[in-house]
Amino acid sequence: MKLDTLRDLLVAELKDIYSAENQILKALPKMAGAATSTQLKTAFETHLKETEGQVKRLEQVFEKLGRSPSGKTCKAMQGLVEEGNELLKEDADPEVLDAALIAAAQKVEHYEIASYGTVRTYAAQLGDADICALLQQTLDEEGATDKKLTQLAEGCVNLAAAA
Amino acid sequence: MKLDTLRDLLVAELKDIYSAENQILKALPKMAGAATSTQLKTAFETHLKETEGQVKRLEQVFEKLGRSPSGKTCKAMQGLVEEGNELLKEDADPEVLDAALIAAAQKVEHYEIASYGTVRTYAAQLGDADICALLQQTLDEEGATDKKLTQLAEGCVNLAAAA
Repeated sequence: MKLDTLRDLLVAELKDIYSAENQILKALPKMAGAATSTQLKTAFETHLKETEGQVKRLEQVFEKLGRSPSGKTCKAMQGLVEEGNELLKEDADPEVLDAALIAAAQKVEHYEIASYGTVRTYAAQLGDADICALLQQTLDEEGATDKKLTQLAEGCVNLAAAA
Repeated sequence: MKLDTLRDLLVAELKDIYSAENQILKALPKMAGAATSTQLKTAFETHLKETEGQVKRLEQVFEKLGRSPSGKTCKAMQGLVEEGNELLKEDADPEVLDAALIAAAQKVEHYEIASYGTVRTYAAQLGDADICALLQQTLDEEGATDKKLTQLAEGCVNLAAAA
């Protein structure tokens, strides 16, 4: 893949996050299934639905760019998901596992926050206002999910794990 | 590794970020070497020195806990670093590569922000004020590095890549 222009880089980064989102779609049901806290289970299920919408939004972006979303495997997300899968095999107390699941999910959220922040800025600097707005919408959702997970951790899950 | 208590999870997460930091120590000189912008090169070199201090700070934390920092390989950071290494092999315009290096570095920073935010909160909730303060210091540095990279990207590097 040639990276001659900022637009080439925009497309490359979008393919990366498209691959990442599709990996997250497969990981979230496992995380929801492993969670003991009902609130955490619901948070993962809600974020699964949101992620389906984010994938569709990315497909709209690719359509606007006249490019295909496929062709890249996000290796960083492979590593993040693998760490989550390892967690599910640990000999863990259920409340401690919930806290660990939140930690793993927040690492995933932060990957997305960094990535969507980057492509949103590229789109803005390239004058693609429509694409910028779509990516900003997802960035806002990822930020809100991260905050919700922090509230869940600090408000109840970590306290249950420490008890 | 058994995860019976929040303290077990604190140690497991600290081992993960210790492995991550050590991988970053090896990656940063390559990223500095590949950067064309003098400001970006300097930012990577400054962050390398800062990372050396963060590793020492983690060693202090392990000493306070009476635990060893070794025993875990952070697979997420392996993926993040591999993506960075792939970038260095791309057929890329030097200014576009600079923008891509910033994107890769910000994904690494966000992994650390998520991770240090998590362990800082665990330490606070477990009443380990000294450890909490050490981890907060690193978290603040990672946040500042991420902001500096955003300023570099938006202020000059992306504009050079788009030119």
